Amino acid sequence: MNDIQAEERAVLGVDLGGTKILAAVVTQSGNIISRAKKKTKPAKPMEDILGRIEACCREAVEASGIPLDHIAGVGVGSPGPLDPVKGIVIETPNLNLTGAPITPYLNQKLNLPAFIDNDVNVGTLGEFVYGAGQGKKDVVGIFLGTGIGGGIIIDGRLLHGFSYNAGELGHMKIRAGGAKCGCGQRGCLEAYASKTALIKRFQRAVKKGTKTILVDLIGDDWSKLTSSVFKKAVEADDKLVIEEITRAGKYTGLAVGSLLNILSPEMVIIGGGLMEALGDRILTLIRQFAQKNSFPIAFDGVQIVPAKLGDDAGILGAAALACRHLAKS
Amino acid sequence: MNDIQAEERAVLGVDLGGTKILAAVVTQSGNIISRAKKKTKPAKPMEDILGRIEACCREAVEASGIPLDHIAGVGVGSPGPLDPVKGIVIETPNLNLTGAPITPYLNQKLNLPAFIDNDVNVGTLGEFVYGAGQGKKDVVGIFLGTGIGGGIIIDGRLLHGFSYNAGELGHMKIRAGGAKCGCGQRGCLEAYASKTALIKRFQRAVKKGTKTILVDLIGDDWSKLTSSVFKKAVEADDKLVIEEITRAGKYTGLAVGSLLNILSPEMVIIGGGLMEALGDRILTLIRQFAQKNSFPIAFDGVQIVPAKLGDDAGILGAAALACRHLAKS
Repeated sequence: MNDIQAEERAVLGVDLGGTKILAAVVTQSGNIISRAKKKTKPAKPMEDILGRIEACCREAVEASGIPLDHIAGVGVGSPGPLDPVKGIVIETPNLNLTGAPITPYLNQKLNLPAFIDNDVNVGTLGEFVYGAGQGKKDVVGIFLGTGIGGGIIIDGRLLHGFSYNAGELGHMKIRAGGAKCGCGQRGCLEAYASKTALIKRFQRAVKKGTKTILVDLIGDDWSKLTSSVFKKAVEADDKLVIEEITRAGKYTGLAVGSLLNILSPEMVIIGGGLMEALGDRILTLIRQFAQKNSFPIAFDGVQIVPAKLGDDAGILGAAALACRHLAKS
Repeated sequence: MNDIQAEERAVLGVDLGGTKILAAVVTQSGNIISRAKKKTKPAKPMEDILGRIEACCREAVEASGIPLDHIAGVGVGSPGPLDPVKGIVIETPNLNLTGAPITPYLNQKLNLPAFIDNDVNVGTLGEFVYGAGQGKKDVVGIFLGTGIGGGIIIDGRLLHGFSYNAGELGHMKIRAGGAKCGCGQRGCLEAYASKTALIKRFQRAVKKGTKTILVDLIGDDWSKLTSSVFKKAVEADDKLVIEEITRAGKYTGLAVGSLLNILSPEMVIIGGGLMEALGDRILTLIRQFAQKNSFPIAFDGVQIVPAKLGDDAGILGAAALACRHLAKS
């Protein structure tokens, strides 16, 4: 393969989520050539879901105009925990893929080298290679959404740890004996600063009679509390929403400060739906409380910045994952 | 240099503490050939302290019978924060070495390549290379003493982070808004599980009239609360001491659990004076609460073990530090 061909090498990046599958054909330099999207239908049999992943990949490749056998490989970001070496999902409570051999399946069906990693690791890798973290070496990614996920990059490489499941930053303990988390443990960051945690507190407040624009916006259907609803409530200066977001921002800042003391990264990238909805308002709080909860030597040089790639972090990170594995082999 | 000489290569390891300086001549395989010890006299002028470090090195070399110019290099573990690249101590509140150019000084005076790192990093490296962590790749060291220090080894290498000061595990935040720590921050592990934290709670309890054997053992001179006093109190089944140690063990376990979720190491090594005094009693609690505060996937494979090298972790780690740097150059 000559240099020009090497430059033009394209891979498939797949972002496998509980509600939708995104696939894209991406060049090594991070240009998205084509995209495809399918519903995950998470309750269907495992074979159906695997088939939908494959179909989504084929659709993206077809749209790219590149023959499948010219695609260099496929990377997948998947909910975890998983075994990235065997390519098997260990457990996915909300998605019928527990035990699914995702990369062996894709490898066989598409005849492409296939690689997999945890979705949040992949998102962090996407931001690291093509987004906010370009040119850095030591980066922590924290994604604030329904849950809270994290990814750690040390010296340019994703930290997997012994179990392959390092980076569970939503389940750092920030308050011993504190709020119960969805994971069954107590005092996790996720129990304080995820959308799920916020909804719980909103519900409690509304029950107690606290006035909030949220009720006008979504009635009592909390599943409608999207990022744009959050944004509207903040723009309307809703007291409850602002109070609760402030609280979540402070806890996130404390967790970031703690991570600075532990890992001393060069950059912390904050992403996810909540971050996108709240922007500078939450970022400023996170920075303030990170400073309050870390040593000056770890805080002074660090950049705490918003993610840049939005929803594309998943497909771009999955593409980067494939490129990195292929470069090694 | 032929193979046999290479095998026999010896280095100096220096453990610089607030009260004493330890130096040793150590072979590459971790045999301590000779030792020397001097008081640090931390309040003396910086030049005096540097001179005492040099003198301690020379004494150890003399005792080894190896000519100084046959020593391959010198490694130093020092209180921090410090800049290991320039070899300069950034700040040492209890030791008059702020700004001291330790490795340039030793390099010039002894005419040896000199290397430095944070004392707890060096202790962790000692355990990793010659102690409990032999043969592992991903190890976390936590040292419970007057304060709490930590060291993180990822893929066989000490994690320094961007500021060179990663691994401040005593200053993980485990209880938002919690107890005030000596560092000025709140809710740090050190504010719950260090000797300093325990003494504060003992003092408060004694003031309130709680009976404890500690009063018989040390009167009201809390500086006499050594590890052996702790041991005696535990052996006498002292209610207060056991309660407080249990509390400290639980918090330490929670912090370890949190670290398993973040880093997923293969092994956690617990060392320091408190650990040595309390042994299995505190280790069992740490394991229990680590399990309670981490995901099964991160807990199941991990070994949580006591440090093996005791006070020699510092000199052996410093020797390992020198050997590793020399192997690279």
